[in-house]
This record gives sequence, structure tokens and C-alpha cells, in this order.
Amino acid sequence: MLYIIGLGLADERDVSVKGLEVIRKAERVYLEAYTAVLLVDQKQLESYYGRSVILADREMVESQSDDILANAHEKDVAFLVVGDPFSATTHTDLALRCRQHDPPIPTRTLPNASILTAVGATGLSLYTFGQTVSMVFFTDSWKPSSFYDRIAENASLGFHTLVLLDIKVKEPDLKAMARGKIIYEPPRFMTVAQCAGQMLEVEEERQQGVCGKESLAVGVARLGSEHQQIVAGTLEELAEADLGQPLHSLVLCGKKMHEMEWEYVREFAVNQDKFDRIWKANYAGKG
Amino acid sequence: MLYIIGLGLADERDVSVKGLEVIRKAERVYLEAYTAVLLVDQKQLESYYGRSVILADREMVESQSDDILANAHEKDVAFLVVGDPFSATTHTDLALRCRQHDPPIPTRTLPNASILTAVGATGLSLYTFGQTVSMVFFTDSWKPSSFYDRIAENASLGFHTLVLLDIKVKEPDLKAMARGKIIYEPPRFMTVAQCAGQMLEVEEERQQGVCGKESLAVGVARLGSEHQQIVAGTLEELAEADLGQPLHSLVLCGKKMHEMEWEYVREFAVNQDKFDRIWKANYAGKG
Repeated sequence: MLYIIGLGLADERDVSVKGLEVIRKAERVYLEAYTAVLLVDQKQLESYYGRSVILADREMVESQSDDILANAHEKDVAFLVVGDPFSATTHTDLALRCRQHDPPIPTRTLPNASILTAVGATGLSLYTFGQTVSMVFFTDSWKPSSFYDRIAENASLGFHTLVLLDIKVKEPDLKAMARGKIIYEPPRFMTVAQCAGQMLEVEEERQQGVCGKESLAVGVARLGSEHQQIVAGTLEELAEADLGQPLHSLVLCGKKMHEMEWEYVREFAVNQDKFDRIWKANYAGKG
Repeated sequence: MLYIIGLGLADERDVSVKGLEVIRKAERVYLEAYTAVLLVDQKQLESYYGRSVILADREMVESQSDDILANAHEKDVAFLVVGDPFSATTHTDLALRCRQHDPPIPTRTLPNASILTAVGATGLSLYTFGQTVSMVFFTDSWKPSSFYDRIAENASLGFHTLVLLDIKVKEPDLKAMARGKIIYEPPRFMTVAQCAGQMLEVEEERQQGVCGKESLAVGVARLGSEHQQIVAGTLEELAEADLGQPLHSLVLCGKKMHEMEWEYVREFAVNQDKFDRIWKANYAGKG
């Protein structure tokens, strides 16, 4: 059996009791470590679980899944995923491979908290979110802006948009590679400020009023942990906000934002007067 | 401190390790028991937690929250919620009351799995869902159809729609009430078949092609448990499907459904040939 186990969002004790029991008994334990990271390191996990954990990077999951699935039709293998297993398509892909394996490998998924629902901590209603959008790091020559069209779709119906921010772990250093060396760059995690900045940059170009300087948004950091932080404001304000250590995400507010959502979220505002003024002028009753 | 603790979806061992530690040490433990239910009963929870649990019905949470919050500014009180705390606005409401309490009561939320993400088990991408819709039991004289407009909005952009199904627990028996007696009706849980039937009924009336007999949908039951069940098909097929014990939910597929989603979800089809034929004719490449 392949158990795909959600670890939740913050630390080694966010796993479910059921998940922990499986981890402690499994033949091998893998940790998916490239679409999200916990706020604690591998050693802390291993010490709490009492098990050694094999780090599974993108290459292993996508190209060497046979190693992960070896003898899983007879033995229990645990594949750990930060957050909830189904919040990344990679895991649907792994489950598909189990189905197609000869002999087929039974799978069981243990769900857990996901950033997709933990953003409810902002006070924004989870029922009013549209499609989820990913934001990648812009470079000088590559500024993909398809996110803008998807946010515009959500905005056309007044939905909030959750923007998931880029994570770069184990990226090869291209200059070293050109010299025939494999060196990995240090991990990078996009911040709320960088995301807001990139949104404003694309708005500047497209000019459709989808994510401008006065658009209301909420930045979140380290959700689910004791040190979580939530900051609400205009995109212009968030582009200057410092939410500290990773992981960060951003929600762009939709015009369906209800008075009760506003009442809750305004407590997190950088500048409450400004937040209230813009809400009343451009959001209240406009959804 | 008021701890609002998600219990996850299936049984007493879906709570996080961290949540369980809080429950075992808290001064009082409440269980919210009207917006969702676990698949195990209160006794099983109490025996596993080693604590007695106070059932909090709608009236207690909405009108007598002072009892729940009593001395919570000094002592730890645990408020348990099936699924994830933020998947129901009631809990935002409770957190707001803690803020406004004199003296203010600090709160901490421990997130967990939610039906909003556990539906990823269908293979449908969680990133392509629009707003979430609730379906209530129709009566002879009351058939609220506002869900139809919201599904139509989602469908206009090709989004999937998660439909959450009505739960009636501790509903007073109106006939007995007229005789001055308070008797509660037995709990009722809407099934996938009932939901699909009501959707077809409203489609018949509105005729906008939003949720007709050939619309593809996925019914789910007891997600996250060992006995979970997933059935895919047309709404007409689902109106005849029996998914057994509660809780049920339904997802109406949007036209953005990607080939990889189709490949996964077709394994659950009542009639795979029909499912494939309709997908190819009306969904593939239409999103």
C-alpha cells in the first residue's frame, strides 16, 4: 500500500494521529520536498517520528517513481506531503502510476490542512474564492502574465483569488553547470511584497484595473503556526510589507467581500482608515 | 485561550497530534455538532480523548456563546469542529466574539482536512473550482434555487462547483411543537441522489443548460475514511446512485476539466463509455 499522507502546514506535530501511526510502521518513508516546505527541518521530523526520512525531490518523483513504488504492492510505503496531498497535481500523478503499476498498488490518502483552506484565517469566506493562481519569480527576460487573465476571470464574478507563491529549492546554478559542475542555488521563497510588486508591474502593462495600487489584498505568512502573520492593505501597501520568514501567500479580495468578512479582515490592515475608505468606495455592495 | 480545533473528516484519529495534546489538557471541551458530523459517535471520541465532551448545538453557539467563552481569558477551552474550522462562517463569528470580549480572549486555530480540499480525491483539480454552493432539502412549498445562479456563474468560466449537502440535526418536530412539546426529528443527511434530483428539477424550470441530464458530475461519500466512495456520471445517473451512509457531497464538473483530470475521474464512472463519450463531445478542449 502506498500511503500519501498530508503533514499539515507548520511542524512535526500537525500530522494526524492516524498518519503518525502509519509513518512509524511503514517500510520506507519519503518526504516530498519541492512544492512546499514545513517550518521545521528534516532532522526534527525524523527525531519526532523516530524514523529516517528519504527526501524526494522533483526528479525522483517525476522520473524515478519506480524506486518509491518498489515492493509497495506487498509492503507499506509512506509518502509525506506538506499540507494536503491533493493540493498538488504531482500526487494525483503518483496515484495514477500506482493504478497502472503491474501488479496494481493500492493507495490510501490521509488528508490534512491545506493553504487552500487555512487562508480562512484571514476572515475571507472560503466559499467565495474562484480558481487558484500561481505566481512565479519574474526574471529580466521572462515575466509570464497568464495569472492576470485568471485573476480577471475571478474578479469579473467578484471572487477572491488565492495566489500561491513560487518556491525554488534545489535549482541548479546555471553558470556552474556551464563549467560542468552541479551546484545548487540556495532555496528561494517568494514574499508577499515581491508578489504584490509583480502584480502591479503587470497591471501597469495591461491597464484593465484587475490588480492596481488600490486593490485590496491580504498577505499571509506561516499560516497554521504559532508565528503566523496576516497583513491586509492595498497592493501598493503590501508591496512594501515585510511578513518575515516563509512561506507566504496572497489573497486578492473580490468585490463579493461581505460586510462580515470586512469586519474581520480590517483588524489586520496596515492602515485601517484607508482600508475602510477603499472598502466602502469600491467594494461594499458592489459584488 | 480558545482553541478552535479541526478534527478532520472521518474518525477520532484524524485530529492532529498537536490538537490531541490541547484537548487532553483543556479545561472544557466542546464539539460543534450541527454543520457536519464525524463518522463516529461522541462516546468513541470521549473514550479516545479520555475527556468528556459537551455537544454544542446551533442554539448554544449562536445564542449562548458566553457559556462557551466563560473564563477562557484565563483557562484553555477547546472548541472542536468537524473538518476544518474555517470552512464554516460560524467559527469566524465565534473568533470575532472573542476579540470583542472584555477582557479579549486570545484564540488559536488548528487547521485540518476539509471537504473543500478532500474532494481532490476525485482527481479534479482543486485549482479549478469556483465558489462553493450549498443545497438545502426542498419541501413541497420551498425550493430555493439561488444555487442555480451561482453554479451558472462558475460554469460561465468553466469552473467546477462543489455542492455541500444539507444536514438536519436536532430539528424540532413542528407538529409536536404546536402541541407544546419539544421533540426533535431524527437526523437527516442529503444524499448525492437527492441533490442531483433537485438540480435536475431546477434545470427543468430554468432551462439554461447549467445542470442538465447530461452534465457530468462526481458524487463522493465518507471522504477521508477507509470506506470512502466516489461515483462519477451524468446528473441523471447520479440521481439514481446509492452511495450509502453519510456524509455526501457532489461536484459538478466544469468545462475546464483537463485531460489528466478526466483520465483519473473516469475510473469512477457508473458507465465509462457514456462518460467518455460525453466528455469528448461536450468538455474536452471547451474550457
